[in-house]
Amino acid sequence: MSISNQSVNQNECDRPHHVVIIGGGFGGLYAAQKLGKSPVKVTLIDRRNFHLFQPLLYQVATGSLSPADIASPLRAVLAENKNTSVLMGEVVDIDPQAQLVKLKTHLEVHYDSLIVATGVSHHYFGNDQWSEQAPGLKTIEDAINIRRRILSAFEAAEKTNDSKFQEALMTFVIIGGGPTGVELAGTIAELAHRTLSEEFSNIDTRKARIIMIEGTDRVLPPYHADLSAAAQESLTGLGVEVRTSAMVTNIEEHIVTFKCGEQIEQIQAQTILWAAGVKASTMGKVLSDRVGAELDRVGRVIVQPDMAIASHPNIYVIGDLANYSHLGDRPLPGVAPVAMQQGEYVAHHIQAKILKKEPAKFKYQDFGSMAVIGRHAAVADFKFLRLKGWSAWFIWTFVHIYYLIEFDNKLVVMVQWGWNYFTHRRSARLITGKYLEVLEEMEGIRVSSLPVEAKEPAEVA
Amino acid sequence: MSISNQSVNQNECDRPHHVVIIGGGFGGLYAAQKLGKSPVKVTLIDRRNFHLFQPLLYQVATGSLSPADIASPLRAVLAENKNTSVLMGEVVDIDPQAQLVKLKTHLEVHYDSLIVATGVSHHYFGNDQWSEQAPGLKTIEDAINIRRRILSAFEAAEKTNDSKFQEALMTFVIIGGGPTGVELAGTIAELAHRTLSEEFSNIDTRKARIIMIEGTDRVLPPYHADLSAAAQESLTGLGVEVRTSAMVTNIEEHIVTFKCGEQIEQIQAQTILWAAGVKASTMGKVLSDRVGAELDRVGRVIVQPDMAIASHPNIYVIGDLANYSHLGDRPLPGVAPVAMQQGEYVAHHIQAKILKKEPAKFKYQDFGSMAVIGRHAAVADFKFLRLKGWSAWFIWTFVHIYYLIEFDNKLVVMVQWGWNYFTHRRSARLITGKYLEVLEEMEGIRVSSLPVEAKEPAEVA
Repeated sequence: MSISNQSVNQNECDRPHHVVIIGGGFGGLYAAQKLGKSPVKVTLIDRRNFHLFQPLLYQVATGSLSPADIASPLRAVLAENKNTSVLMGEVVDIDPQAQLVKLKTHLEVHYDSLIVATGVSHHYFGNDQWSEQAPGLKTIEDAINIRRRILSAFEAAEKTNDSKFQEALMTFVIIGGGPTGVELAGTIAELAHRTLSEEFSNIDTRKARIIMIEGTDRVLPPYHADLSAAAQESLTGLGVEVRTSAMVTNIEEHIVTFKCGEQIEQIQAQTILWAAGVKASTMGKVLSDRVGAELDRVGRVIVQPDMAIASHPNIYVIGDLANYSHLGDRPLPGVAPVAMQQGEYVAHHIQAKILKKEPAKFKYQDFGSMAVIGRHAAVADFKFLRLKGWSAWFIWTFVHIYYLIEFDNKLVVMVQWGWNYFTHRRSARLITGKYLEVLEEMEGIRVSSLPVEAKEPAEVA
Repeated sequence: MSISNQSVNQNECDRPHHVVIIGGGFGGLYAAQKLGKSPVKVTLIDRRNFHLFQPLLYQVATGSLSPADIASPLRAVLAENKNTSVLMGEVVDIDPQAQLVKLKTHLEVHYDSLIVATGVSHHYFGNDQWSEQAPGLKTIEDAINIRRRILSAFEAAEKTNDSKFQEALMTFVIIGGGPTGVELAGTIAELAHRTLSEEFSNIDTRKARIIMIEGTDRVLPPYHADLSAAAQESLTGLGVEVRTSAMVTNIEEHIVTFKCGEQIEQIQAQTILWAAGVKASTMGKVLSDRVGAELDRVGRVIVQPDMAIASHPNIYVIGDLANYSHLGDRPLPGVAPVAMQQGEYVAHHIQAKILKKEPAKFKYQDFGSMAVIGRHAAVADFKFLRLKGWSAWFIWTFVHIYYLIEFDNKLVVMVQWGWNYFTHRRSARLITGKYLEVLEEMEGIRVSSLPVEAKEPAEVA
């Protein structure tokens, strides 16, 4: 018997059950909040010091909102739960025998119950080399990077007289026609064709091309066909070129190659964004190695009806990292409501186990799904009711403000959206971080990759 | 005669006078705005795509405001001035004979009048190696870096049981007792002693030490002695240890060494911030090399009474980069009102020259100065009236909202400040960018520089 097991037995009577949660996304945070008034000890571990409201991340990437508007410090959110500690750090391993979670910097935390909610990252389907030129959107840093690229492309376009280069700078390709792809494409179109249209002297930003490439035969594939058609119509109305049934085969030197049936096409674009796929975070593999958890094709953990791992009923996996297929053929989608409900369910489940009660079964309540395309343009699929256009957009706006975690975030987002709505302005359009490097790299590309033509003023004297 | 001069003569009748402005800070932006309705062509060149409201930058560094709340896209601000172009890029040289401004990426821009308003950067008085450990606060990136360091120090402190290391992590040294130093010290004290006080489990953030080191015998040296005393009292009240007549002699391995008279002291602190001095931006040297501009001790350009350079009456220098000493013995201070008034003055001066009118003389209207220490604590020196405490704080708040460039920034800052005021919360407390690297580096320091003691749980089984 290990030291750790001894200590567990020894202390079982005089110390509270310790629930360790890895990940402060929707799943982890909702579990922590639900456990906040229970007679358990809770430790939430995250690599970040904030919860990120990911559904609005595309608005940071396109200059409408600031990172802090959609991020809430985990400590502030959980401050009132006196049984809860927060640790910032990266979990790299677990030891299921000793019931330890191991952080990268030598710290180990003992758990009685473990909730793993570390989500997913981008999936390039074996083409990880594409990630450099076609970044995805998962973190604040991703959003700042994408914002920098989009805005720098216009700045570089303003400075050149080379029309072919200018065209490439003003071409934006979004790969993937799911909600994130649709939101990005619609907002970039509004940004280029409206917000920026009066601000440049040498370019007409209304001529910017925004192209969406989707592999299936319609945008928003999981939605009802009517709504997909409505979304596509809205996108087209905003000036987005939608290419469906198009498979990307290569991304290199700012050229996207894709196949439509037998035909191969290429688009030269300075800015290429990836919204096509996700794969499980590395904790999936850790669970597979350490407790023999079964993984699906993209590395998600296949869970039991109670969200636990078959061999270890005290280890739960929830949210995007979990593959929960007990309600039908397909696993539940990787969306916020699933994670929230699973978080709350697992909290209940642990409470019931401690009280030696029979825990209820998980029942996913599907309130439907929504995606926004642009101003007055959204689709909402409530099963019993399908909405599009103004009404869906209005509900989308209300729901997103309602679910924002902190009150001041609700307030600030409302102010910003009101301002954007009436002025078409987007005031978080900052090029930050490696601001000059990116611009100069773009301008350098022109020098190196295009036919050598002197575009600069002739050398003086 | 050079090609460029030929083209100037050729076009003189049919093209408008071209004013090129380098730098979109207070000086450059106010000049551009004043010229926006004149019969001239204006080109504003900046390395950034936004104007930064620098007086509130310390609030970004301490998690109260988001970068976009105090930054305004230059293109948006100037969009209505149809005679104005904005170029994002770095000016590296000028050619006064050909009247060209040269950008790093091969672009050249011809000017008839040139306004140089590139400001200042940090000055370590010959100890540039200190900059790594003691960063200064001039840019958005500086602020994000400082915010990351302050917040990461508390996160690392929460994770260690080594009390000596914990103490170093919870010690914050601010070098320099001018307005920026006072604002940083006061806000960090409020952050540690109030905002964070309920959020940690293993540390008591109220025990954090905030130490200000000032070389002269009082804080806010340019202010009236009464106000310096009031500011120092407010700082002390907030728990800041103020050390005056203390000269920093070394910064190394997170230890600040300073001299008080003959006595040498050392403080170990994870976080050291530099608010002690500024030097001219590199354009000062360019002007010295190219047009023989006279520089002062810190590299600022000594200007004529009309802000021009003696040898080149069509090249003006304004704002922090200018040394304007025509109103007394000392040059005008490097504050926003000076830059704003000089920007507007130079715009008038150019307009008058074009109309062949006698330009008015520059007259600085000194409305006084203000510095804020914390909630209800500020000092204001209006010459005829000196205020401290609540009244000065109220006026400071009002003036700063009034001068923010964009309406939505005013609105959002008001909302945030209102929220902070009533809740003591600061919701922009995000650790972004190199978020884990910084934390792990801090935790690594402990491993390498402190006595080797096993603080981790004993190896299991």
